[in-house]
Amino acid sequence: MNIAAPSIENARPFTRACVWHKLLANKIVEVAEKIKKLGQDDPRRIVHSLKVGLALTLVSLFYYIQPLYDRIGENLIWAVMTVVLVFEFSVGATLGKGLNRMIATFSSGALGYGVHYLATLAGEKGEPIVLGFFVVIIAATVTFVRFFPTMKTRYDYGLLIFILTFTLVSVSSYREDKVLRMAHQRVTTIIMGSFIAIVTCICIRPVWIGEELQNLVANNIEKLGNFLQEFSGEYFKISEDGQPLSDKPFLQGYKSLLTSKNTEETMANLARWELWHYRFGFCHPWKQYVKIGTLTRQCAYKIDALNNYLNSKIQTLSEFGSKIQDPSTEICSESGKALRELASTVKKMNQPTSVNAHIENLKTASEYLKFMLDTYHLKDANLQDIIPSAEVALTLIDVVPCIVKIADAVHELASLAHFKTPATRVSP
Amino acid sequence: MNIAAPSIENARPFTRACVWHKLLANKIVEVAEKIKKLGQDDPRRIVHSLKVGLALTLVSLFYYIQPLYDRIGENLIWAVMTVVLVFEFSVGATLGKGLNRMIATFSSGALGYGVHYLATLAGEKGEPIVLGFFVVIIAATVTFVRFFPTMKTRYDYGLLIFILTFTLVSVSSYREDKVLRMAHQRVTTIIMGSFIAIVTCICIRPVWIGEELQNLVANNIEKLGNFLQEFSGEYFKISEDGQPLSDKPFLQGYKSLLTSKNTEETMANLARWELWHYRFGFCHPWKQYVKIGTLTRQCAYKIDALNNYLNSKIQTLSEFGSKIQDPSTEICSESGKALRELASTVKKMNQPTSVNAHIENLKTASEYLKFMLDTYHLKDANLQDIIPSAEVALTLIDVVPCIVKIADAVHELASLAHFKTPATRVSP
Repeated sequence: MNIAAPSIENARPFTRACVWHKLLANKIVEVAEKIKKLGQDDPRRIVHSLKVGLALTLVSLFYYIQPLYDRIGENLIWAVMTVVLVFEFSVGATLGKGLNRMIATFSSGALGYGVHYLATLAGEKGEPIVLGFFVVIIAATVTFVRFFPTMKTRYDYGLLIFILTFTLVSVSSYREDKVLRMAHQRVTTIIMGSFIAIVTCICIRPVWIGEELQNLVANNIEKLGNFLQEFSGEYFKISEDGQPLSDKPFLQGYKSLLTSKNTEETMANLARWELWHYRFGFCHPWKQYVKIGTLTRQCAYKIDALNNYLNSKIQTLSEFGSKIQDPSTEICSESGKALRELASTVKKMNQPTSVNAHIENLKTASEYLKFMLDTYHLKDANLQDIIPSAEVALTLIDVVPCIVKIADAVHELASLAHFKTPATRVSP
Repeated sequence: MNIAAPSIENARPFTRACVWHKLLANKIVEVAEKIKKLGQDDPRRIVHSLKVGLALTLVSLFYYIQPLYDRIGENLIWAVMTVVLVFEFSVGATLGKGLNRMIATFSSGALGYGVHYLATLAGEKGEPIVLGFFVVIIAATVTFVRFFPTMKTRYDYGLLIFILTFTLVSVSSYREDKVLRMAHQRVTTIIMGSFIAIVTCICIRPVWIGEELQNLVANNIEKLGNFLQEFSGEYFKISEDGQPLSDKPFLQGYKSLLTSKNTEETMANLARWELWHYRFGFCHPWKQYVKIGTLTRQCAYKIDALNNYLNSKIQTLSEFGSKIQDPSTEICSESGKALRELASTVKKMNQPTSVNAHIENLKTASEYLKFMLDTYHLKDANLQDIIPSAEVALTLIDVVPCIVKIADAVHELASLAHFKTPATRVSP
C-alpha cells in the first residue's frame, strides 16, 4: 500500500478519514505484533511484569488494611518506593539493590542522626551551618568514592542511597523534632519494601542471573565449536564448487561474542549477590566465567578471520589445498568436539571426561599440519594458488592454542567449583 | 617488608601493636595514593563531587530559610531526592534523567489523580479494589514496556518514575484527602530539584557527553592511524634484526577499541539529550558516530591480526619480503595519513580536505601490491619463507576497504552535520 501524503490532503473528508483510519489500524497491528514478539522471545518478561504488579499490590495492602496502616502510617510511601526501585528482572540484581539499599539506609540514617546531634550542640544559629558543612563534605566524598571501579561495580546503588538518606535525615532534622523516629521508620519501611520485592522475585519463577551467565558462557563456547565443526566442510565444499557461500546462520552465531564483554562482566557482578542459589552455593568462582568468556572472545577474533576466508576467497582447490584438506578437517572436527564437550561441562557442571583426548588429537593434527607447511616445497606454482589455503591452515594452527587455553580455564573452573564427576555407567 | 602472620601472633604485645600500626599506615598510604591517582586521571571527578555537594546545599537552603520553607513545607524532601538521583557526571545524563523525571512525574500524577477519581465513584468498599486493579494493570504494562529496546535506551528512568509516582499517588489517595494538592506539590518540588541539578551541572565546568563521544571516536580513528604508520617500520625492522619486539605502548593503543561498542552506544544515546550545546545544536547526527565507531572496530579486528604477526612471527626478511616492502610501507603510510586527517576532521568539525588524495594513493598502492602477489612466480622457494610476508601483505590489502568505508562514513557525517570548510590561507 503506497499512500502519498499529497493525495490525502486533496481527498474528500470521508476518504481522508478512511485513509487515516487504515494507517492507524496498521500502526496498531504493527505495535501489537512487536509486543507479541517481545513476549514470545522471552516469556519471562511477561511473568516479570506481573510479578511487579503483584509486589506492588502486596505493599499496597498496608494502606488498605486499617490495623496495618495504624502501625506505620504515612511513611509507608518508602516501602512502595523501595519495591518499585529494587525490583529487577533477575534475582541477583534485586538482591544486590535490596541489600545495598537496606545497608546504606541503615548506616547513613545513623550517621545523619549523629550529625544532627552535633549540630544541635552548635546552637540555633550554628545548626544550619554545621548541617550544611557536613552535607557538602559527606556528599562530595561519597560521590567521589563512586568513581572507584571496585565500588562502582558492586556498591554504586548503595552509595547513591547513602547520600540520599544522609541528606534527607540531616537536612530535615532541622525542621523535624522526632529525627530518631523518622530515621527508624524510614529504615523499617525500606526493609519491609526490600523484603517484599526480594521474596516475590525469588518465590515466583525466579530468573537466576548466575544460571544465565553459565548458559551464556557455555553457549558461546558451543557456538565456536559449531562454527569449527561446520567450517572445514563448507570451506572445502566451496573450494570444490567454486561457488560463494550464502551467509548461513550457523556460521554467523559466533558474531555476538565479539562484543559481549560488558554483558558478561555485569552478569558476573550481579551473580555474586545470589548467595543462596541451590546449585552454586556460597563463593562460586564467578570471576572464572569472565576469564573463560575473555578467552572465548579472543578465539572468536580468529574465527572471524576464518569466516572472512569463507566469504571472500572463492577458489578452486589447488593441489596444495587438497593436500592440507585432511589435517585441516581433523583440526576442525577435533576442535568442535572438544569445544562442545567443554560447553556441556560448563552447562551441566560435570567434570570434563574426554576433552583431554580431543585436545591431544588436536595438538597432533596441528603439529602435522605445521610440518606439512614447513616441508612443502614449491616447484612451479603460482603464489595466488597457494596463499588462500595456506592462510586458512595458518589460522587453524593459531586457533589451537586458544582452544587449549579455554580448556585449561574450564578445567580450573571445574576444580574451583568442585564440579561432580559423572557416574560411569556399568554395563549390566 | 615481609611480615609473616605467625611471627605477629607470637610477638610481645608492644611489637605486635607496632607491626599492626605499620600495616595500617601502609594500607592508608595505599588508599590515599589510589584516591590521588583517581583524581589525577580525571580532575573533573573532583569538580563533579564538589558540584553535587553544592547542589545539595542549594536545595537545603529551602529548609533553612523560613519564608521559603513556609511555602513548600515537608514535601521539600522530594526536591532533595531529585537532586541526588538526577545529578550525573555529564550534562546529557543529567538532562536525560531530569526531563524523564519531570515528564513522568507530571503525566503519572495526572493519571493517578484520574484513577483516584474513578475509585471514589466505586464507593468505600470498592475503592481499594479499583485502586489495586489499576495499580497491577498499569505497573505490569509499563514494566513490560521497559523491555522494548527503543524505550529502554532513552526512557527507562522515566518509565520507572512513572510506575513509582502513579503507585504513590493512587495508593496514598486512599488515605489522603488532598490528593490534588499532594500531586501538585510533588510535581513542583521535583521540577525544582531537577532544575537545581541541571543548572548546577551546566553552569559549573560542564562535562558534555557529546564532546566526549566526538573525542572518543576521533581518538579511536587516530589510534588505528598511529598503529598503521608505525607498523611497517616496526615489521620490516624486526624482520631485518631478527629480534622480537617488546610490546610498545603505541602499538597497543588500538586494543581498547575492540570492546568499546556499548560505551559508544550509551554515549550517543545520552548525547541526544544535550539539545542546547553551542557546538552541535539541535539534531546533531549522533547515530553517525556510532556507525563510524562500528566501522573503526571492524578495522581494528584486522589490525589485531597485523599485531599478531608482529609479535609471533620473527623471520629474517626473505627475498619476497624485501620485494613487497615498498608497496606495504606505502599502504601503511598513506593509511596513517588518511586516518589521522579523518580523526582531525571529526575532532575539529572541519570538512576533510586532503583525505581523498590519500585514499587514491592508498588504492593505487593496494592494487600494485595485489598485482605483485598475483604475478609473483615461485621458483625454488620454501613455503615457510614466503607465508609470513604474504600474510601481512594480504591483511594490508584487506585493511584498505575498511579505511575507505571509514572515510565514506566521515564524509557522510561532515555533510549531515554541515561541518565548515576550513578557510584556505592566502599567502601574503
